[in-house]
Amino acid sequence: FPSRLPQVGTTIFSTMSALAQQHQAVNLGQGFPDFGCDPRLLHAVTDAMQAGHNQYAPMPGIAALRQAVSDKMQALYGRRYNADSEITVTAGATQGILTAILACTQPGDEVIVLDPCYDSYVPNIELAGATAVRVPLTPGSFAPDFAKIAAALTPRTRLLIINTPHNPSATVWSDAQMRQLEDLLAPTNVLLLSDEVYEHMVFDGQPHQSVARFPGLAARAFIVSSFGKTYHVTGWKVGTIAAPAALMAEFRKVHQFNVFSVNTPMQAALASYMADPAPYLELPAFYQRKRDLFLHGLQATRLKPLPTRGTYFQCVDISAVTDLPEADFCRWLVQEIGVAAIPLSAFYGDGFDQQVVRFCFAKEDATLLAALERLKKL
Amino acid sequence: FPSRLPQVGTTIFSTMSALAQQHQAVNLGQGFPDFGCDPRLLHAVTDAMQAGHNQYAPMPGIAALRQAVSDKMQALYGRRYNADSEITVTAGATQGILTAILACTQPGDEVIVLDPCYDSYVPNIELAGATAVRVPLTPGSFAPDFAKIAAALTPRTRLLIINTPHNPSATVWSDAQMRQLEDLLAPTNVLLLSDEVYEHMVFDGQPHQSVARFPGLAARAFIVSSFGKTYHVTGWKVGTIAAPAALMAEFRKVHQFNVFSVNTPMQAALASYMADPAPYLELPAFYQRKRDLFLHGLQATRLKPLPTRGTYFQCVDISAVTDLPEADFCRWLVQEIGVAAIPLSAFYGDGFDQQVVRFCFAKEDATLLAALERLKKL
Ligand SMILES: CSCCC(=O)C(=O)O
Ligand SMILES: CSCCC(=O)C(=O)O
Repeated sequence: FPSRLPQVGTTIFSTMSALAQQHQAVNLGQGFPDFGCDPRLLHAVTDAMQAGHNQYAPMPGIAALRQAVSDKMQALYGRRYNADSEITVTAGATQGILTAILACTQPGDEVIVLDPCYDSYVPNIELAGATAVRVPLTPGSFAPDFAKIAAALTPRTRLLIINTPHNPSATVWSDAQMRQLEDLLAPTNVLLLSDEVYEHMVFDGQPHQSVARFPGLAARAFIVSSFGKTYHVTGWKVGTIAAPAALMAEFRKVHQFNVFSVNTPMQAALASYMADPAPYLELPAFYQRKRDLFLHGLQATRLKPLPTRGTYFQCVDISAVTDLPEADFCRWLVQEIGVAAIPLSAFYGDGFDQQVVRFCFAKEDATLLAALERLKKL
Repeated sequence: FPSRLPQVGTTIFSTMSALAQQHQAVNLGQGFPDFGCDPRLLHAVTDAMQAGHNQYAPMPGIAALRQAVSDKMQALYGRRYNADSEITVTAGATQGILTAILACTQPGDEVIVLDPCYDSYVPNIELAGATAVRVPLTPGSFAPDFAKIAAALTPRTRLLIINTPHNPSATVWSDAQMRQLEDLLAPTNVLLLSDEVYEHMVFDGQPHQSVARFPGLAARAFIVSSFGKTYHVTGWKVGTIAAPAALMAEFRKVHQFNVFSVNTPMQAALASYMADPAPYLELPAFYQRKRDLFLHGLQATRLKPLPTRGTYFQCVDISAVTDLPEADFCRWLVQEIGVAAIPLSAFYGDGFDQQVVRFCFAKEDATLLAALERLKKL
């Protein structure tokens, strides 16, 4: 039978993690912490299981968790999402993104993505039978190019996908850029999918410019969040989607026939854990320190760091070290130097190569120092 | 924007569970146990979390869990599935089913379902852009009608979905019926999706006729299993799909961009728990006793039980009690008598009404007795 996704191979993240293991390399490739989460969060899961919360959660998620997310979004971003009708718990951000795309597009629709982008977006669009339209971010700065986005809009454009803080470039959108997008979309019916899984990793005292802050954007948007990224439990696979009720109603039609509901004890634990805002309020300082530690160490190498304004990723220019394409350099780096990184070309539809690779600094200080020691050999 | 699933409302299971709660009814509607699971399984989750298994699992699932499933299938069904390439862990059976349908169908393909069937199948087919072809099971006996299935096959038929033990009718397919299907499909390229989530609930000393036992079927089949059903943890949302490597390769392309991976601590716990086969080997006797307790109690009511050969559902004929359509009767029953049930019409595309409703007996004996006490009033 013909493949539904003929272009797709194994994700670069799985491939690099496997290579890292094979070569006993320091794994700064796939984005996940190598340290544990708050023990209180683990105890909350045990308590929830012991209290008998092991059967189906309500389809949209446990009410207390949806309420906690709503309260957080109002406190941080100033928009009130109705916990009953406007927030749904998902089996991780990736499942939320596929579900949103399936829910709001039809075959023949166009969906604009901004290259480089996370590698699930385009296959998700293809699974929905829609057509992906790739618009590049500005080379070098990774800033959105609104003239190019405007030029890509057609009467068939149903959805635009944005992502700030941005994986892989570690850039963040400014208030002015969000307003420009708001103006650009104002005369259209284009929907918005805003991947904000790094919302609590914005540095240098800047606020996260959530789409929820911009009424003209929020009214047309699915906003994606991830407990895995925020609480250091990427393997729990729990996230949320927030959207106006009319969008959410369509989202839930698909959600109930994709996963139906999400892990109950993890949801119950997250609901009680969220009562304390400190863990996410302290996250920017926590990761900024790690960024700075890693940046400082990079000075002793021949890798040139790009600015990291958000996420837990650090991009570096490799052109002083090698002429190899990014992907070849990454294979060589993991085998010969013993450090895993991700080539930025993996995030581009056309494999665009700018000799930049991405490291993940969500790691123990000792892990980062061990990687830096090896990178000095370059 | 136009709805992707214009026919779909809230599932009957959510609706009835909400009504049950509202009217403080005994909930024998939605299929889930009201008792706890083995405490050893909960301890295994706590141990896995404490041991630090909280980051992304490998995309196809934790190797030890895939191996345990492979070993079980070989022991019980005599077919060896390669744990590396032929088994994938899913975020529950429902996610596995959508993913399989998306992976193997194209717009224009036809998928045959046997009515009555689980309510996610047809929306899943529609999300894939394929066309659902509903073939009725034999009225009364719910046996597959092979002449009707043969008549529904066209050059565009890509997939047939079967389900044994069967929800909602509680019938099971015999060895002879499986062979008939094998013969019927032999000259075709039609793929098979076999929903076997009730595989460990077959009664009266009969074996489960897994598709894995029939080489001509297994070679073309996705086989769906559910840890939630087997281990009394429906809220954990962990299942598996087994399929020949070529089918599984396509499955994983979609899986990695739907959920990417599944809850790590639950997977680790299930892997260690599966070392002991007793829990699933003892399940038929455990549920057969509940079936018989419930059946015995029904004798004191005017509801006429249909045979239950498998699953944790008991269907009853309501025609001696009421002229109401099933759905109206169920609404009345939950409100006035205080027992929630599911109308079989909810599992039919055309709402076919045979005055039969479904009770779930995966409940504490006291719950079943309380429901029976109320049902005597009919
Ligand atoms: C789901 S594996 C990829 C993790 C991640 O978000 C990244 O490394 O970009
Ligand atoms: C996912 S809720 C439905 C549970 C179930 O399998 C049923 O009641 O048929």
